[in-house]
Amino acid sequence: MCVVSWISRRVPRPEAPRLRPRVAPTELTKVDFTELIPEPVPFLGQAAYIQLEFFEGLSRAVGTAPTLGAKEGLSAAAGVALGKHHDLIAELRRMDVEPVDVMAPFAPATARLHHAWSEGDWYELLLAIHVTSGMLDGYFASLANGLPTDVARRVRGILDRGGAGLVLEGELAAAIAAEPGLADRLALWGRSLVGDTLLIARSALHASDARGLDEKVEPIFTELIADHTRRMDALGLTA
Amino acid sequence: MCVVSWISRRVPRPEAPRLRPRVAPTELTKVDFTELIPEPVPFLGQAAYIQLEFFEGLSRAVGTAPTLGAKEGLSAAAGVALGKHHDLIAELRRMDVEPVDVMAPFAPATARLHHAWSEGDWYELLLAIHVTSGMLDGYFASLANGLPTDVARRVRGILDRGGAGLVLEGELAAAIAAEPGLADRLALWGRSLVGDTLLIARSALHASDARGLDEKVEPIFTELIADHTRRMDALGLTA
Repeated sequence: MCVVSWISRRVPRPEAPRLRPRVAPTELTKVDFTELIPEPVPFLGQAAYIQLEFFEGLSRAVGTAPTLGAKEGLSAAAGVALGKHHDLIAELRRMDVEPVDVMAPFAPATARLHHAWSEGDWYELLLAIHVTSGMLDGYFASLANGLPTDVARRVRGILDRGGAGLVLEGELAAAIAAEPGLADRLALWGRSLVGDTLLIARSALHASDARGLDEKVEPIFTELIADHTRRMDALGLTA
Repeated sequence: MCVVSWISRRVPRPEAPRLRPRVAPTELTKVDFTELIPEPVPFLGQAAYIQLEFFEGLSRAVGTAPTLGAKEGLSAAAGVALGKHHDLIAELRRMDVEPVDVMAPFAPATARLHHAWSEGDWYELLLAIHVTSGMLDGYFASLANGLPTDVARRVRGILDRGGAGLVLEGELAAAIAAEPGLADRLALWGRSLVGDTLLIARSALHASDARGLDEKVEPIFTELIADHTRRMDALGLTA
């Protein structure tokens, strides 16, 4: 199920004047997300389903938290993910569609997240949520720019809400500092999550223009991975 | 850990004029909850912890729901329980206490709920939440009447919010209608939950006046059980 097609904007945008030579490698590969036009209904369905999965991961982390303090922080983060889910559902209802029907086709792709929640111990669960929500929240918020203006503004507002990141980073950093072997184990685990997360990101893009798309999508994924590397670095983990 | 002491109100209330003879048995045993004066900090700590447990139970039900429709309804109910928890926590912060410290002593009593979430199948989980939250929400909302006026008003507002009841009843009723043996199994399970729930309710009452208290508490528990029986009746289950 793909929710985004790669269509040029109707109005060609004029080339912006270049005030200085574009030399930085990141600029050379920089992607203009507004060239991606998501179909609103499936886009919102997939985004909503993914937030429901983050909620499930976070509430599992609440249920198995070793301290009441951790439980407390994670429950707030779970509440944010659930709020995002319900607000995206509300956008679907505005469009007079039944959210459950729209979300259902994304179950198989999103099941990869579900596996990530249940395979590891508590710290691996925390890192799994941190890695996947870090990558996908940013990705979907960027894709949202291609939606009709009003919807785009509201959906950006929903997806940009900070939630789990700080709580998860705090818990993970404390555990890594306290337990010598944990960093190596988590570094490996983090790396294993990237492929599945990219597959979920890929599933949001339209396959009909597959040949041209691959070429355009590559830099998006390069950015997602750079973003992931920064997140792992912040924890002192090799990405 | 007990959060309520049984103290008479400072101002004696005048006997209300009786317009008709009091004959109904329920009236003879009717309890005036305003005679119970909870200590605000531990009362809020226990109430907040219990809502966190309901949230955990509901989010476990979301994670194991057989259909996306059920997941959707239960996730909304989980959001309500989490909102109650966080709003009760906010009341504790107003009092300049650390919520985690205040909640911690209630972990052992509340662990009974935690067991109820993990012992049965999905329908038993739903009934466990329905039975315990039905009994305890009403009980704590009634006890809240004894708090200082402003706090009492806000806490009543928090605890009275409808949440899981309708969703749980809907899912259970549909399952009971569809699966012949389920009603008998659930009736037994429901009965087994009452004792533990009453122990949690009892733990909120002060033990220092144990002899006098037992006598006064008995009618409260009689009402809790009557309330439980109505809830089971609504599902066609023997209480």
